[in-house]
Amino acid sequence: MSAGIVTLLTDFGLRDGYVGAVKGALLSRNPRLRLVDVSHDLEPGDVTAAAWALRQSAPAFPPGCVHLVVVDPGVGGERRGLACRSGSQLFVAPDNGVLHWILGDAPIVRSLAVADSASPVFHGRDVFAPAAAALAAGAALEPLGPGVEPDSLVRLPFAPAERGGDTWRGTVVHVDRFGNAITDLELPADVRGVAEVTDRAVPLRRTYSDVADGEPVALRGSSDTLELSCNGSSAARSLGIGLGDVIVFRVD
Amino acid sequence: MSAGIVTLLTDFGLRDGYVGAVKGALLSRNPRLRLVDVSHDLEPGDVTAAAWALRQSAPAFPPGCVHLVVVDPGVGGERRGLACRSGSQLFVAPDNGVLHWILGDAPIVRSLAVADSASPVFHGRDVFAPAAAALAAGAALEPLGPGVEPDSLVRLPFAPAERGGDTWRGTVVHVDRFGNAITDLELPADVRGVAEVTDRAVPLRRTYSDVADGEPVALRGSSDTLELSCNGSSAARSLGIGLGDVIVFRVD
Amino acid sequence: MSAGIVTLLTDFGLRDGYVGAVKGALLSRNPRLRLVDVSHDLEPGDVTAAAWALRQSAPAFPPGCVHLVVVDPGVGGERRGLACRSGSQLFVAPDNGVLHWILGDAPIVRSLAVADSASPVFHGRDVFAPAAAALAAGAALEPLGPGVEPDSLVRLPFAPAERGGDTWRGTVVHVDRFGNAITDLELPADVRGVAEVTDRAVPLRRTYSDVADGEPVALRGSSDTLELSCNGSSAARSLGIGLGDVIVFRVD
Repeated sequence: MSAGIVTLLTDFGLRDGYVGAVKGALLSRNPRLRLVDVSHDLEPGDVTAAAWALRQSAPAFPPGCVHLVVVDPGVGGERRGLACRSGSQLFVAPDNGVLHWILGDAPIVRSLAVADSASPVFHGRDVFAPAAAALAAGAALEPLGPGVEPDSLVRLPFAPAERGGDTWRGTVVHVDRFGNAITDLELPADVRGVAEVTDRAVPLRRTYSDVADGEPVALRGSSDTLELSCNGSSAARSLGIGLGDVIVFRVD
Repeated sequence: MSAGIVTLLTDFGLRDGYVGAVKGALLSRNPRLRLVDVSHDLEPGDVTAAAWALRQSAPAFPPGCVHLVVVDPGVGGERRGLACRSGSQLFVAPDNGVLHWILGDAPIVRSLAVADSASPVFHGRDVFAPAAAALAAGAALEPLGPGVEPDSLVRLPFAPAERGGDTWRGTVVHVDRFGNAITDLELPADVRGVAEVTDRAVPLRRTYSDVADGEPVALRGSSDTLELSCNGSSAARSLGIGLGDVIVFRVD
Repeated sequence: MSAGIVTLLTDFGLRDGYVGAVKGALLSRNPRLRLVDVSHDLEPGDVTAAAWALRQSAPAFPPGCVHLVVVDPGVGGERRGLACRSGSQLFVAPDNGVLHWILGDAPIVRSLAVADSASPVFHGRDVFAPAAAALAAGAALEPLGPGVEPDSLVRLPFAPAERGGDTWRGTVVHVDRFGNAITDLELPADVRGVAEVTDRAVPLRRTYSDVADGEPVALRGSSDTLELSCNGSSAARSLGIGLGDVIVFRVD
């Protein structure tokens, strides 16, 4: 247990005071909280990028951490605010798909009650931060609001990856700042094969530098999923692939 | 009291070592300080943006926090460095207008003494950080330098908002990364009315999603002031308004 | 000694989950670590910028801090991962030149052992972070891997600055976000002279505002080295200088 750690993932950018306001609200509830910035420069409203950043980062944290996500284009509207326990970690986020990839087998989910005093344009500060501070101090999920059926949560429109037979299929779910095209197809550590990208066969290698500069390569990425990369340049651009594209992986 | 928290707001960006140098100087004075990043990607020298970011964030923090602002185009010149207590919070900043919106009724202000050893090009590290570290450790303001008359502080060139009768007036003081045009006109929680923007009447609603996509809306923003917004796009661009524009608000 | 502080300097940007993953890996090893962000928005793979940011920031920190650098275009390839003690500070970084300017007289350097379980595409999380966490908890360097001869470390291709006679020479090693062109030529506090930039003589002054707006000025910068600056604009652009250019400084 490392009670007291709250991570922050937002689309607030770093030229306004919104990140500071959320941090202030957290520390006002509990000045001993330990705040950890994950990312704040997501494209405004980019729920998919937030969901993948959470998938990339949350599993690395020790048990009991609270992950606060404020990428919330529907703030103040009908969408629910959520508090969720999945595995050993806790999440506070809007119900818009950001939890898509971290929901484990039997998440426990509550819908956050919204106080009358909360600003309808800033639930990050007035609804989510107080909930995250309470959870990080060891409070239970239940008092935060009514229970939510996990099946009712908003999901992202990505078909699950397929690993039947020797023709596997994944979807590009993220293009990172280096231009790596990352899929949701989990690869075992010892698999061998070839990715088919448009009409090219891209062999699976160990790391970026296993091919010449500018050459495309398929990798088991840092989240253990199939990733298309170009040593020294953008794979997404040079291979002409992007978010939502389906990639076939032929197992040797 | 939450002695020991120092927030940082700078225009240093995130591709140089300046933020790190300021943090190192703070921790060298007191390794137990708890540092909280507010924003570092303000436009270089944008004192107005810094002042509003401080207005957006500082009120959310618990009493006794020290807010360190290093947006300081006049570093090394005649401008004074300030330490200030306003309400329950402490501020360390250059005297260039960044404290414009957080100065309360009776701030206590000192002008920071500058040691001979301070680099004339980096007061953030050598003058402001040591003062902030001392204040965060509970030191008094008075030994930091001579007293300053609050009336003598540099202010920003914005006329105060007007709320006489049923025609109120505010000025656009900030356009945030989402394109929201934020004014300094404080609105009571229960006010009703219409904002007049160029030749359009924009009704006051509760939140962004109370209008259709792309439609402009007036809101009581997260700092309790009048804000012009467009659901899903930039209000500043679509309404053709920007920093310094006066907005009329007609109370119903 | 301020055991427990780890600074982070990466090119991961702030729109992916990589920074979060490294922080999670650090806190998983030791939830009490205190993490300090230096910069994360370096250009991807810009080893020179990382090296100078480290030179700008690390000396300001108290003794015993661990500085973790993940600007690592050669990850998974032949380049070594390093743990290094130089002066009173500790560094964990790839062997690609990022330590160029902070290596003191007698650094102690080890080459990091790489566990089989480490992702070959993310040594920042799986190799460097565990080493940094161990060092920050007070562990010795020696168990981290075999010793490395300091002379064998990768260096950046900058000739050392020259200070013989009254004609000194430095190289532009960094252009910061403000457009200041920073050289590696250390200047004594009381030196006087003129920088020669292309065919212009730029006098040494105390601070930016000692010249009129838009005029170039030479300064002893915040790292005590010669710096070319323009009050209110980019010196690099207006003087037509950039990374690697040699600047002559004539001592009066």
